Amino acid sequence: MKIAISGKGGVGKTLLASLLAKTFAESGYSVLAIDADPDTNLASTLGFPHPEKITPVSGMKELVEERTQTGPRRGTGFFKLNPRVDDIPDKYSQQHNGIKLMVMGQLKRGGSGCYCPENTLLQALITHLLLARDEVVILDMEAGIEHLGRGTAKAVDKLIVVVEPGRRSLETAHKIDKLARDIGLQNIAMVGNKIRSHSDEEFLISSLPGFEFLGFIPYDQALVDADLANRPLLDSSQQIVNEVRNIYQALLSSAQVQAR
Amino acid sequence: MKIAISGKGGVGKTLLASLLAKTFAESGYSVLAIDADPDTNLASTLGFPHPEKITPVSGMKELVEERTQTGPRRGTGFFKLNPRVDDIPDKYSQQHNGIKLMVMGQLKRGGSGCYCPENTLLQALITHLLLARDEVVILDMEAGIEHLGRGTAKAVDKLIVVVEPGRRSLETAHKIDKLARDIGLQNIAMVGNKIRSHSDEEFLISSLPGFEFLGFIPYDQALVDADLANRPLLDSSQQIVNEVRNIYQALLSSAQVQAR
Repeated sequence: MKIAISGKGGVGKTLLASLLAKTFAESGYSVLAIDADPDTNLASTLGFPHPEKITPVSGMKELVEERTQTGPRRGTGFFKLNPRVDDIPDKYSQQHNGIKLMVMGQLKRGGSGCYCPENTLLQALITHLLLARDEVVILDMEAGIEHLGRGTAKAVDKLIVVVEPGRRSLETAHKIDKLARDIGLQNIAMVGNKIRSHSDEEFLISSLPGFEFLGFIPYDQALVDADLANRPLLDSSQQIVNEVRNIYQALLSSAQVQAR
Repeated sequence: MKIAISGKGGVGKTLLASLLAKTFAESGYSVLAIDADPDTNLASTLGFPHPEKITPVSGMKELVEERTQTGPRRGTGFFKLNPRVDDIPDKYSQQHNGIKLMVMGQLKRGGSGCYCPENTLLQALITHLLLARDEVVILDMEAGIEHLGRGTAKAVDKLIVVVEPGRRSLETAHKIDKLARDIGLQNIAMVGNKIRSHSDEEFLISSLPGFEFLGFIPYDQALVDADLANRPLLDSSQQIVNEVRNIYQALLSSAQVQAR
């Protein structure tokens, strides 16, 4: 199963990605978590020791140069547009608590075609991860999802857009929905986060008519306190863990329906 | 005065940028506000009518093609690396309540040099805005500030990093500080946001030792309520407006000290 998670900065994409990765892993799935948002730190949320020491793929200069055939010794002016990437996930991912993690680094966005060696490698890598790997792949992404691209959008079983009760997160959700349709990605579902009351839930449902909601994650002061005290986040709130388990079940059911 | 505002997604960069723009404008300054974060909507926060109809500069295909000498009729293979931009702010900015606004669109980040026509034009434009314009320029940026670059970093009077009481926003603040130093930008100051108690303030101060704090913006339910009810944000909380006025005064004093 391939799950991409997007939404406005600060809504809680990384928390959901981490808890889903943990839930799938604990249920016996082989899980590959991908940090594709330079503004988050999936490694630290997943509890990896020394997350600051993980070099993102885009920063592995020699790897980028070798695979795209660029670099000082290669001359300039051209590089390989379809670099080999199939061995990268196993060689360059980190592992902790049964979860494999890859940190992508700076992925430049689509638009009129922005070519540079790092981007070419990362794009090829994402394509490979989505199309050719048979793990559960969980992609923690920026709001700009254009780099999924037409070729890989089909492979995404579910694009989850995380929203919180606030106008800007809804605006971003609508932008993402539009981008997703532009690249042919239709399996979109929402997850509400930081829900303080039933009226928060109703606000989100009525603001996003026609969208499937996989669940509503409650606001829990215990999580905020754990964060401020620098304690691990993932076990800090049982009610959040429970709700993510429901979301996990909803994802499995939805995949079964599609497989029929 | 040139002010750049950065920080983790969701911390409140756009709110601060908007309120500072308003405060400078009301004090008689000519203000140019720049939306350089594709994940925000400075136009809607500033109360511009029909913000969804504003075309970002990166999306003005003809302008990009004309200035960078690319496009179907020009052939391929090269484009102008120093396009003319000095007339763009006046021709292509929108105005509302005495504030000029430019929306940049997708600015690709630095790294090993990512060249494409849109990026070249946007980079040239940011350089021009920072070095050659004599308005107060307020730049609402992503956490990735690499595109400020060595040449323009000197022109930034203050890089404000917005932080909230939460570990991830601190991690991002440290990343931004490192990036800023890498490009020679030293006038960095923090603004705390979503402050619920004195201990939130102390938490931020003790977590970011040695950093100047320009102010602490309180959490105010009135702002959240205004947002959910789709009412204008900027006048919704008098205590937030007052604190941003203090930050504005601190910026002026700091500029005077530097001028001496």
